[in-house]
Amino acid sequence: MRGSTMMTKPDLFPVVGIAGCGLIGISWAGLFLASGHDVIAWDPAAPARDRFADGVARVVEQLDAIGRSGQNAKGHLSVVADVRDVASAASLIQENAPENVPLKRALYAEIESVAADHLVISSSTSSLVWSELSLGMKRPERLVTAHPFNPPHLMPLVEIFGPDIALLTRVAEFYRSLGRVPVMLKKEAVGHIANRLASALWREAVSIVAEGIADVPEVDAALVNGPGLRWSVVGAHMAYHLGGGPGGIDHYLKHLGPSQERRWATLGSPSLTPEVCAKLVDGIRQESQGLSVAELELRRDRGLIAVLGARQKAET
Amino acid sequence: MRGSTMMTKPDLFPVVGIAGCGLIGISWAGLFLASGHDVIAWDPAAPARDRFADGVARVVEQLDAIGRSGQNAKGHLSVVADVRDVASAASLIQENAPENVPLKRALYAEIESVAADHLVISSSTSSLVWSELSLGMKRPERLVTAHPFNPPHLMPLVEIFGPDIALLTRVAEFYRSLGRVPVMLKKEAVGHIANRLASALWREAVSIVAEGIADVPEVDAALVNGPGLRWSVVGAHMAYHLGGGPGGIDHYLKHLGPSQERRWATLGSPSLTPEVCAKLVDGIRQESQGLSVAELELRRDRGLIAVLGARQKAET
Repeated sequence: MRGSTMMTKPDLFPVVGIAGCGLIGISWAGLFLASGHDVIAWDPAAPARDRFADGVARVVEQLDAIGRSGQNAKGHLSVVADVRDVASAASLIQENAPENVPLKRALYAEIESVAADHLVISSSTSSLVWSELSLGMKRPERLVTAHPFNPPHLMPLVEIFGPDIALLTRVAEFYRSLGRVPVMLKKEAVGHIANRLASALWREAVSIVAEGIADVPEVDAALVNGPGLRWSVVGAHMAYHLGGGPGGIDHYLKHLGPSQERRWATLGSPSLTPEVCAKLVDGIRQESQGLSVAELELRRDRGLIAVLGARQKAET
Repeated sequence: MRGSTMMTKPDLFPVVGIAGCGLIGISWAGLFLASGHDVIAWDPAAPARDRFADGVARVVEQLDAIGRSGQNAKGHLSVVADVRDVASAASLIQENAPENVPLKRALYAEIESVAADHLVISSSTSSLVWSELSLGMKRPERLVTAHPFNPPHLMPLVEIFGPDIALLTRVAEFYRSLGRVPVMLKKEAVGHIANRLASALWREAVSIVAEGIADVPEVDAALVNGPGLRWSVVGAHMAYHLGGGPGGIDHYLKHLGPSQERRWATLGSPSLTPEVCAKLVDGIRQESQGLSVAELELRRDRGLIAVLGARQKAET
């Protein structure tokens, strides 16, 4: 292990590229820099490039403030106007381009036109999958999907998938070295794991509002003070294991499995009709109590930082 | 407000009854006593009555240790062998009998045979609804469903429903005075809100395992470090509001609503076949790493206490 006074560069992917300087790119870049990686970033839009350094500095400040920077000296940030400069300098590019297959494919082709063989492209894609993104690449095996949960510098989860297990293992080690929790998929899936779970839960949350069982603020309060709180500590499968008493999941499945299947059959399948959308928008207006999205985000981040700190303490 | 040195009894439901001395009853009783209520408890089974005081004492100790006891002097606990003694002494009975309609109805009849008009019966039922439980009661309006999330002395959520809004408001105030977060349903629903959400999420969690996308430990890790963590701070509706950027939920629904509906159509609807159950049991065995259900529960409670403390701090 490295001593905290010895300031060196990380061994794994010392220079990280950023392709796409939006909110996700800013958050990633701050995390990479705070952990000692040099970062070279590109975006096709000049305004995004111009705003980038300030946004990244705020992320680094936040990580410093909560003691979440790595042991290494901060990395150096440069922003360039040609993605090929990123491709020739970096050993891993975190790609955060819009969720558009032809656009991403064209970007990968441009990157590959100058990239060394060992360059890894790690896509933050949330809704696309490896097989469609890698199509037509010179070296498809260099592509990994690595979906963070927003904001990536605070949320630990990174869902990774790719065909080359040795590379996936190295990429997982890289994210782990940044304090992230990489989770490897065995098979690609639209929405990976987390957004599939979130989508399934939200469908029922929308249904409860649509059916008039409860309004938006009540549904959110129930989640935050019930299952959401629990799932910040134990997963859904583990929660049913504990729900089974001393016999655990085995007992649960035998005795309550059939009633779960009956419950599943009664869950809603709402449509986002104009009427339902109006209920959701009204409900959020109530729940927000006049706070803007930016203010609500600040509050969320403060909450996340508090919960993350507490979890870390409880685990050690 | 009451001064912290003045030790008095709570004004609202000073004497609380417990019908059903299992785990839920123990947890509720500890919470009531720690907040200064006298508790009179009954269970038909002598062993449950005999174990009760020790279990309750451990809950009170835990609440003391985490600074979650109320400002009032601790209440007094008595355990009786005849539920009619509870019915004549208490002003609210928290009923935690098995989830069996005829059994609960018979219990309510016995309670009503001696109860004063003002007695409130508050049922912890998780899977039954008010309309079926109240059938045949002398005064159905005295029944409220008040479903806690387990364990009730740690988890804030209590989902309440009943036909008498004035009574519901008073019952909500009671639970709020215990540091709980009561959430009122507008319409009864099997599974109330929280277990419907949990069931919807678990259906997809099972599907992901059944489809071979990821195993149990990975699905749980993705939830705990992604959406679960987020939902301990903001609800699902609010999360999509923040996901919509400055335009919020309105923007989200317009631009990403259709893709959510498409996602909903691709979610799994698994069956708990022997094969799927075996995968779940194996996965839990891996995830548990040799820890017993009791040890995992202890770890969960330690985590919950840490997260609750951190949330409270972040809010103030």
